[in-house]
Amino acid sequence: MPYSDTVTIAVDAMGGDHAPDVVLEGVAAALKQDESISVLLTGPEEVVVPFAQAHDRCVAQPASEVIGMAEHPAQAVRKKKDSSIVVGCRAVKEGRAQGFFSAGSTGACLAAATLVIGRIKGVQRPALCSVIPSPIAPVVMADIGANADCKPEYLVQFARMASIYAEKIVGKRNPRVALLNIGEEDTKGSQFAQQTFSLMKEGVEGFAGNAEGNDIIAAKFDVVVTDGFTGNVVLKTVEGTAKGLFSALKETLNSSLKTKMGAVLVKNELKTLKDSINADAYGGAPLLGVNGVCLVGHGSSNAEAIKNGVLASADMVRKDIAGSIAEAVGK
Amino acid sequence: MPYSDTVTIAVDAMGGDHAPDVVLEGVAAALKQDESISVLLTGPEEVVVPFAQAHDRCVAQPASEVIGMAEHPAQAVRKKKDSSIVVGCRAVKEGRAQGFFSAGSTGACLAAATLVIGRIKGVQRPALCSVIPSPIAPVVMADIGANADCKPEYLVQFARMASIYAEKIVGKRNPRVALLNIGEEDTKGSQFAQQTFSLMKEGVEGFAGNAEGNDIIAAKFDVVVTDGFTGNVVLKTVEGTAKGLFSALKETLNSSLKTKMGAVLVKNELKTLKDSINADAYGGAPLLGVNGVCLVGHGSSNAEAIKNGVLASADMVRKDIAGSIAEAVGK
Repeated sequence: MPYSDTVTIAVDAMGGDHAPDVVLEGVAAALKQDESISVLLTGPEEVVVPFAQAHDRCVAQPASEVIGMAEHPAQAVRKKKDSSIVVGCRAVKEGRAQGFFSAGSTGACLAAATLVIGRIKGVQRPALCSVIPSPIAPVVMADIGANADCKPEYLVQFARMASIYAEKIVGKRNPRVALLNIGEEDTKGSQFAQQTFSLMKEGVEGFAGNAEGNDIIAAKFDVVVTDGFTGNVVLKTVEGTAKGLFSALKETLNSSLKTKMGAVLVKNELKTLKDSINADAYGGAPLLGVNGVCLVGHGSSNAEAIKNGVLASADMVRKDIAGSIAEAVGK
Repeated sequence: MPYSDTVTIAVDAMGGDHAPDVVLEGVAAALKQDESISVLLTGPEEVVVPFAQAHDRCVAQPASEVIGMAEHPAQAVRKKKDSSIVVGCRAVKEGRAQGFFSAGSTGACLAAATLVIGRIKGVQRPALCSVIPSPIAPVVMADIGANADCKPEYLVQFARMASIYAEKIVGKRNPRVALLNIGEEDTKGSQFAQQTFSLMKEGVEGFAGNAEGNDIIAAKFDVVVTDGFTGNVVLKTVEGTAKGLFSALKETLNSSLKTKMGAVLVKNELKTLKDSINADAYGGAPLLGVNGVCLVGHGSSNAEAIKNGVLASADMVRKDIAGSIAEAVGK
């Protein structure tokens, strides 16, 4: 059931490379921009209490521990029960918040969300989902790293969950769903891909066949489904390739007086292009299939990205993504 | 033993989207540029005989059949024994040529090379290898699609074979080899990746750990090894992302009078950048592990790319890549 009144998002004050300052700045901006959200801020008492006192609709939820980026996710979640991530997820589990947002360790967020919030009944494996930055149109991809080892039937659920996200959050009507594979034809691919293809053909609404690597950025499909190993490699490859090309472009434009003059004339438009392939607009990667909203932001998030993450989490709560997934999986 | 005298390359006159015209043009250019190569041209009599008559160091090898891009590779190779691809591979098998080059169906070339030329003794699976276009430095990747399903031990051999190619053809000294994975740490990844990591750590000279998707274009390693499914997806993702960004860039530069003026000033330099990430300079993707040279060009190859392919095939023969692989695998 969608929420019509105030939505509470638990926010990990200690998540991200520039925490807590940038997180606090982003939370303040989110609270200011959307007056129908409130924030449950988790983190060290000396960080969260003064901030909550100074801001309306913000409640401090002290957490004495922090999970670092380099820690083993599942072990850290089990050991550090009073960490900002685990405390945030517990708030969702106990209904004190409807969503959780962190720009901290992705692995720890996945582990905490799965262990503490728990899966939606019928979901075999939650999937980490992301909007791939394409200059043509946003493309939703899952799994991008929650499940390095998958069974074909998991991908059928990934497809259903990612379709709901694509439709309700990214605004795709009747999303076209594809399986990432190494050829267009039905019979192509590894044994895993072939088995998955058969299952998806039968069980996924909007299934439109195989996507190849070059079809992703070309936005030939709205949703591209794959196992978490391939998805993680592909997402990082897209980001790395875009970053590498923009940095080579910058160097090229700086290479002579003539190119520098040219650069002045195209500067604003290049900035627009660069922004158009910035996935931060969607606030982070949602973990779909857990019993509540869990959104993970980039570690490098700035205040703007944190603000987007908090607002996007509230959007997912209001649009009842978890409820739609429960319904779709129950079918 | 490297060749010091004339090298004969069997060339598929019917390979590629613009065959045979573009192939003939490329072959003529290769014969002109390198006087110590000769070409055994396979294809329909009416195509290859007149061309051979008109060109020194070119011998016609009529082949009455052609394998199309859409045909099932292994079936087509078995059925069409008088196709230009099979006839070309047979010439290598029988020692009438030392290398085979085609811009035709990759699958058919792989099947024909494996079935007709045969594997080097000790090689479990030949690997398709490619130079990934990076603006920073060329990166060698294997497998990019010959083996959709792999065992961890295959990748150890892929690493050894790709290292030899990287050293002798791409000019990397003591190549740094990485396993494509979803995290830097030794214990990351799927079960397959973890098992492969252990084997590579023990058995691959120059092994430098895990590479993530974004490390490829950053040229953090000289050789990146993965299974043929992931490699094929990644290569196409890099190509698709680069293509998508350049086309968005072109549109951006054409968007107003001001940007058009800017574009004029940076045009040449952008062309240089675009060329720098053009992998065609290496002439195509070598199938490493077969008992002779087999190089597969892009279907969209122009005459320049065909010429590069023929010259690169001869280079691989002269540098005795197959002999080095036989030695490395025998270790």
